[in-house]
Amino acid sequence: MKTITRDLSLLMDFYQLTMANGYFKDGLKDQEVIFEMFFRRVPDGGGFAIMCGLQQVIEYINHLTFTDEDITFLRNKHLFDEAFLEYLKNFKCTLDIYAFKEGTPIFPNEPIIKVVGSIIQAQLIETMILLTVNHQSLIATKANRIVRSAEGKVVMEFGARRAHGYDAALYGARAAYIGGVNSSANVLSDKLFDIPSVGTMAHSFVQLYPDEYTAFKKYCWMYPNNASLLVDTYNVLKSGVPNAILVAKEVLHPMGQRLKSIRLDSGDLTYLSKKARKMLDQAGMQDCKIIVSNSLDEYMIQSLLIQGACIDYFGVGERLISAKSEPVFGGVYKIAAVKENGKFEPRIKISENIEKITTPADKEVYRLYDENHKAIADVLTLKDEVIDTSKPYTIFDPISTWKRKELVNFTVEPMLVPIFIKGKQVYQSPSVSEIREYCIQQVQTLWEESLRFENPHNYYVDLSKPLWDLKQELLESKNQR
Amino acid sequence: MKTITRDLSLLMDFYQLTMANGYFKDGLKDQEVIFEMFFRRVPDGGGFAIMCGLQQVIEYINHLTFTDEDITFLRNKHLFDEAFLEYLKNFKCTLDIYAFKEGTPIFPNEPIIKVVGSIIQAQLIETMILLTVNHQSLIATKANRIVRSAEGKVVMEFGARRAHGYDAALYGARAAYIGGVNSSANVLSDKLFDIPSVGTMAHSFVQLYPDEYTAFKKYCWMYPNNASLLVDTYNVLKSGVPNAILVAKEVLHPMGQRLKSIRLDSGDLTYLSKKARKMLDQAGMQDCKIIVSNSLDEYMIQSLLIQGACIDYFGVGERLISAKSEPVFGGVYKIAAVKENGKFEPRIKISENIEKITTPADKEVYRLYDENHKAIADVLTLKDEVIDTSKPYTIFDPISTWKRKELVNFTVEPMLVPIFIKGKQVYQSPSVSEIREYCIQQVQTLWEESLRFENPHNYYVDLSKPLWDLKQELLESKNQR
Repeated sequence: MKTITRDLSLLMDFYQLTMANGYFKDGLKDQEVIFEMFFRRVPDGGGFAIMCGLQQVIEYINHLTFTDEDITFLRNKHLFDEAFLEYLKNFKCTLDIYAFKEGTPIFPNEPIIKVVGSIIQAQLIETMILLTVNHQSLIATKANRIVRSAEGKVVMEFGARRAHGYDAALYGARAAYIGGVNSSANVLSDKLFDIPSVGTMAHSFVQLYPDEYTAFKKYCWMYPNNASLLVDTYNVLKSGVPNAILVAKEVLHPMGQRLKSIRLDSGDLTYLSKKARKMLDQAGMQDCKIIVSNSLDEYMIQSLLIQGACIDYFGVGERLISAKSEPVFGGVYKIAAVKENGKFEPRIKISENIEKITTPADKEVYRLYDENHKAIADVLTLKDEVIDTSKPYTIFDPISTWKRKELVNFTVEPMLVPIFIKGKQVYQSPSVSEIREYCIQQVQTLWEESLRFENPHNYYVDLSKPLWDLKQELLESKNQR
Repeated sequence: MKTITRDLSLLMDFYQLTMANGYFKDGLKDQEVIFEMFFRRVPDGGGFAIMCGLQQVIEYINHLTFTDEDITFLRNKHLFDEAFLEYLKNFKCTLDIYAFKEGTPIFPNEPIIKVVGSIIQAQLIETMILLTVNHQSLIATKANRIVRSAEGKVVMEFGARRAHGYDAALYGARAAYIGGVNSSANVLSDKLFDIPSVGTMAHSFVQLYPDEYTAFKKYCWMYPNNASLLVDTYNVLKSGVPNAILVAKEVLHPMGQRLKSIRLDSGDLTYLSKKARKMLDQAGMQDCKIIVSNSLDEYMIQSLLIQGACIDYFGVGERLISAKSEPVFGGVYKIAAVKENGKFEPRIKISENIEKITTPADKEVYRLYDENHKAIADVLTLKDEVIDTSKPYTIFDPISTWKRKELVNFTVEPMLVPIFIKGKQVYQSPSVSEIREYCIQQVQTLWEESLRFENPHNYYVDLSKPLWDLKQELLESKNQR
């Protein structure tokens, strides 16, 4: 119980192992391929998502080995060749892995992770890469929406009890912090990731004592310089707020202390917060903050603020930690190229569902910025293409190709950063709070039109002319209706 | 990386620690209380939920200790008394814990877990109890809906890549299996919980080879007695199914083997499955099963079956593992009684939101069955009440009290089973597959009207007359509008 490392090596879909065994048997152990992770749409109809979870991918890759117990378990399936099991026993990752940095805004249909190397290795890590990055990007993206809705007011992550298991609580708090929340109630995420942990009191505290007044008095005596009182156990306006004021005056003020805050967790938060604010102000407690919680999300917060609710801190629980309005980040992991005669040959997946068609080949992703460092577009290119910023560069819509734009005075940033080269880690993650700062800066490079919740501007993710031509050619050659 | 035990002791909300420290400081270390976990509504508007996650609660309680590192971390907050930190250092759980068995149908507003003992201990375990049981009950409940929609056809859990982190994938597979799915793609859940792991192939397998025909041939050569072919990489009816049939005839049939199944993962699943079935049948491959996947849930499965889609196996992913349609199981943990002068005195929480009012006192839960062992109602009673089955027993609606029913020829089952007594585990969980069997039997005790998806019958969760009287009395004494 005293360690957080775990054996996650077998956390994969069974077909990864049957395919890998098959490749091994077919002599394709060293067959090189390129896989890409990308996603098809932003949850909640948003304008962008936030990349998150890379550090946990790094830790997973660094620890990916198979124990004797794992091998025995697999052997007992009577499906796998002994030579393959021996290979797993001596498994060593030698892949090249490139990725967007955590905290970066990401857009549909661009590779956010690129894996280059052995087909077997690339296949075995699919489930964990998707699982890790889908989950944390989902929560970071949701958190960023919620934080933007709060217009600079403090947002606290309170969701552990409604998370989908322990990792969802822990890495969910990490992702929420990267996405912009100010703190979390989760003590473990404070210990492991330095995310400031905060909290008030539960209803049980108030109920333990014979009455609310006594409970508040006790709490202020226990935490005179850090008291926050939950005022809705019985009746907010007739009992909770009056008792909080009384106790502040009787216990705290004589000690030269102030009541830090009160919390509302039920009822009409707009009405109650306005009334409570007035009562606190009339008692000379203008510095006492009002915290609210109770099924908040970006829409509820927007609505509270529009109604003029008197709220300083938002405690956001289940709707953040579970991304309730859309709890799935649909990242996928698809093959883009296969090495043949020393050269990566493009692969494409056609589908009856048009949106499931992939973009082939070994690619790079560039983000193009204007002279004010606002992001204009992301452009996917073939690996060796160069975008020459000293000349005008034309971007065009990959579907409606007549929609063109000629760029001048622009800068270019390559987005896929080397993380592992031949299995060796070459990238060090910043601290979680550094990633959070980076995320805040990165979101500022987006146009306001990408930030809004309803019908945001579709940020351009374009293909370079050579890549577009290649994709068309492959589609023509495979197409059958 | 080679162990699955972890230090989760600090996975709690910060206020558990500040309250606990406060109680300690106030001399209430040994103050006894009763907490109850219950939930207020069934996700998706269903008629019942499935209790799940108890085994992980047991493991957590058995391992709950605080390391020197934990203590140092807390000391550096400069909030906690040394004596309290010393108490944590020597922490030993001495609680009594009662719970519904895993796999049991559970209903809103009844205690599904009851914790009796020290206020500090009961408070410290709140977050983990809720987190564990909320998550697994959510997934088991969703899985049970999906399995019921499939009308006896096989349902496979395929969701790991879209789960909310590693535990969501692992314990989500456990909960889904308990809820009734037949198998999972998750290899780790097979290793740890003996959940049969299954799988087919990914599109990348087909794409790796120069063409689909070659890929299928390779796969059948690799797994002649267990081949399942994914037929939608290029074109299902013009390429995928014809190639599958060709390869079955060329490779498998001469070896005396049969093609086990084909899988469809995109497009119009009804149309494609009917056409594919016809093509397979005409080729004499009536025994080749059809597997479908692609954003399935209970509604999609119902719709496919109503349309007469020719499907044998359903692979269900993101909509099960994330409980997408309603990803939150709203279990709460509330104080019900406080020991005063050697006797548990009831506590109630009033709220502006009526549904947040709690039911006070030390309680028991009984399930009443008719002579055919169909469940009639659950009745919450005071701890020492006896329901005498030799006499008629009247149950009544706690809101519309004039709605009454007199029961004769009924049996009674106490639902809260002792799990820990004075901190010592007194209950051994059955195996996961035994829990799954128990769940299937338990669901059969419910009336059909509770099983339907739309507007199910509201199963009765009643209060005994003495408990109802006590609650009314407390409400009257606290009530202020």
